[in-house]
Amino acid sequence: MFVIMVYDVNQSRVTKVLNTARKYLNWVQNSVLEGELTDAKYEKLKAEVTKKIKPEEDSVIFYILRTTRYTEREIMGVKKGGHQTII
Amino acid sequence: MFVIMVYDVNQSRVTKVLNTARKYLNWVQNSVLEGELTDAKYEKLKAEVTKKIKPEEDSVIFYILRTTRYTEREIMGVKKGGHQTII
Repeated sequence: MFVIMVYDVNQSRVTKVLNTARKYLNWVQNSVLEGELTDAKYEKLKAEVTKKIKPEEDSVIFYILRTTRYTEREIMGVKKGGHQTII
Repeated sequence: MFVIMVYDVNQSRVTKVLNTARKYLNWVQNSVLEGELTDAKYEKLKAEVTKKIKPEEDSVIFYILRTTRYTEREIMGVKKGGHQTII
């Protein structure tokens, strides 16, 4: 599965969340990571992130694409992160 | 098509970019918007955003899902934006 993770967490927890996410996904832009994961790895990622955030203050969204066959990515401006082509 | 837009732009241009994006998409989280768009609307959105950013400094990514049939969204923590279910 292909996972896009976007987070909006308190400044004091940004580094922890980012470091956790980076173990599983590729950083593409401020607060955005993406990558191919197994179901098991995705579950591990979520479990680790849960421990790092305050659910009453922070917000993390995962978009899970079961297939990237119908998905494209377009970038405008600077391509900041490591590149990983969807299509 | 379903579009997810994530932006990472200079603070001085955040409001302009956000206001432009909001005309077409629903705000879901800091720097993230999403929504269903026609091809024509998507082209208009891109044209407007292009005028608002500095391409050598800012970065905007559009994920375009031709179908949301194989897509899920999971939210951890606060659900900040207006809700629009993918699945």
